[in-house]
Amino acid sequence: MAVYTEITDEEVQTFALEYDIGRVVACKGIAEGIENSNFLLVTDQGPFILTLYERRVKREDLPFFIGLMEHLAGRGIPCPVPVRGRDGRALRTLAGRCAAIVTFLRGMWPKQPKASHCQALGEGLARLHLAGADFAMRRPNDLSVTGWRAIYNAVAVGSDAVAPDLAAELISELTTLERRWPKALPVGVIHADLFPDNVFFEGERLSGLIDFYFACTDTLAYDVAVCINAWCFETDGSFNVTKARRLIAGYRAVRPLSREELHALPLLARGAAMRFLLTRLYDWLNTPKNALVTPKNPLEYLQKLRFHRSARGLGAYGLGEADAS
Amino acid sequence: MAVYTEITDEEVQTFALEYDIGRVVACKGIAEGIENSNFLLVTDQGPFILTLYERRVKREDLPFFIGLMEHLAGRGIPCPVPVRGRDGRALRTLAGRCAAIVTFLRGMWPKQPKASHCQALGEGLARLHLAGADFAMRRPNDLSVTGWRAIYNAVAVGSDAVAPDLAAELISELTTLERRWPKALPVGVIHADLFPDNVFFEGERLSGLIDFYFACTDTLAYDVAVCINAWCFETDGSFNVTKARRLIAGYRAVRPLSREELHALPLLARGAAMRFLLTRLYDWLNTPKNALVTPKNPLEYLQKLRFHRSARGLGAYGLGEADAS
Repeated sequence: MAVYTEITDEEVQTFALEYDIGRVVACKGIAEGIENSNFLLVTDQGPFILTLYERRVKREDLPFFIGLMEHLAGRGIPCPVPVRGRDGRALRTLAGRCAAIVTFLRGMWPKQPKASHCQALGEGLARLHLAGADFAMRRPNDLSVTGWRAIYNAVAVGSDAVAPDLAAELISELTTLERRWPKALPVGVIHADLFPDNVFFEGERLSGLIDFYFACTDTLAYDVAVCINAWCFETDGSFNVTKARRLIAGYRAVRPLSREELHALPLLARGAAMRFLLTRLYDWLNTPKNALVTPKNPLEYLQKLRFHRSARGLGAYGLGEADAS
Repeated sequence: MAVYTEITDEEVQTFALEYDIGRVVACKGIAEGIENSNFLLVTDQGPFILTLYERRVKREDLPFFIGLMEHLAGRGIPCPVPVRGRDGRALRTLAGRCAAIVTFLRGMWPKQPKASHCQALGEGLARLHLAGADFAMRRPNDLSVTGWRAIYNAVAVGSDAVAPDLAAELISELTTLERRWPKALPVGVIHADLFPDNVFFEGERLSGLIDFYFACTDTLAYDVAVCINAWCFETDGSFNVTKARRLIAGYRAVRPLSREELHALPLLARGAAMRFLLTRLYDWLNTPKNALVTPKNPLEYLQKLRFHRSARGLGAYGLGEADAS
């Protein structure tokens, strides 16, 4: 679930008076998401989303996230639009947390993504990258290659209890990634967490991209790699090469990938797997037993990491030599 | 949280085709309730609630609950109305569970109930009792006095680890309740679980009563006792006699309480405290550590039980001798 902070009806009513959104008729906690508390706020003008930012989101990063959503929405990306209050501000305080109201997006996230979803996702991701090109603010990616060793150090002791010899495998992989990580690929705004539960569809049409709270300035092709991991593996751990091919084809139909970006994809996918393996390991080892959120199993990402490490070239991702030349 | 069963967008879309509720535009799990999985289903006709009945609700009881909501709504009680499909049925199957769509009620439940809420709650409860008087179906209360010893037997071994000498206190109390439980008070449909999170308000006006999945045929005044426990204690454990007086006054303004019902209230309140103490103890001792739901602390209800046991007459509940004669 994703409601860490309870709010009273009086608090919600008073909060809503700061906005031109009509009278609140209901406010229900939403059982999705992990990082923040999300509420469906129904007013006589319709539904909105009310988010209370919990501790994992840094207060100083919020203007970047809010500004980015406004920027992208202004360029036609179907993302939540922060609603500004009568005083012009989109961020204020509720129940001791930073809070914002954003527009409600139609659609549902695909619990069982199909290849057609992957193609639409690829197109949507590329559109997001193009739309973000002239966004003026920057935010470094704390969870990219330079941040992984600190997380490794925090999980190394506990990791061998999760899988045999995991610490040795992690440090070896980490050293490779640090040495070989590409530094000259195109950079811009990336979503960095575009899992299926952050992408809404109406039928086959992509209708919404949400949850920009890991968005940052980083290598664009790394965002493609994150999506390959999140969308193209089946629940039994097998890699669906058709989905990968469609995802990449959808992306390239909107924003071409250079030869260098394509050839970097397997390594970027290893890195993307390492990032989620490390943070899930951290949560797995540090979540108290009575927590509201059940931590995700890190081993899913160990399996993905091993897949990419053993992949022999772009053929493993459904691409031929002609694609990459 | 309260989403135990995930449903895919295709399942929801197909399910909704059985109804005249328009096209589904969103479906989000609601982080409230404990027993069932609840979703906010938004269609182009507006919001609805989709409930998947989980294992604690017996399949054979569902026609009682559905019939009761239809009956009460038809008599003006602001409760969810089951939506019947094109085939006339309100109950069908979704994701392997019994499922129903009910109407969406405006309002919010009071996180910090005030005395005015308690009065409105008392009035609403009495209206529910009157409206249920001619409901033809019956359902015995599994969780009343005849059911408590079985739960006691299941928790006795573990209970002393929760509070010192708790098992001895429980069996002594249970024996008293079994001996003295009133058998001749007016009986009818009771809600049996009318906690604040099941009662919606718009401002001071009661706008909704929900969650009828413990409703049954039992002593009407016992329902008042359940509400006294749920609404009239402060978070520090103290009893707010003003709230109790207002709750009872609200009730009596709509449905008079007989002398016998009033004098039975302290004992009924002990029983109501025993019922929630026992089921919370059971959940406390039997919930796996990685469960989605954090069990509620049973000791809150031990404290309430002790309050009622030590109460000297109706004065403790804000009633004078004149009230009860």
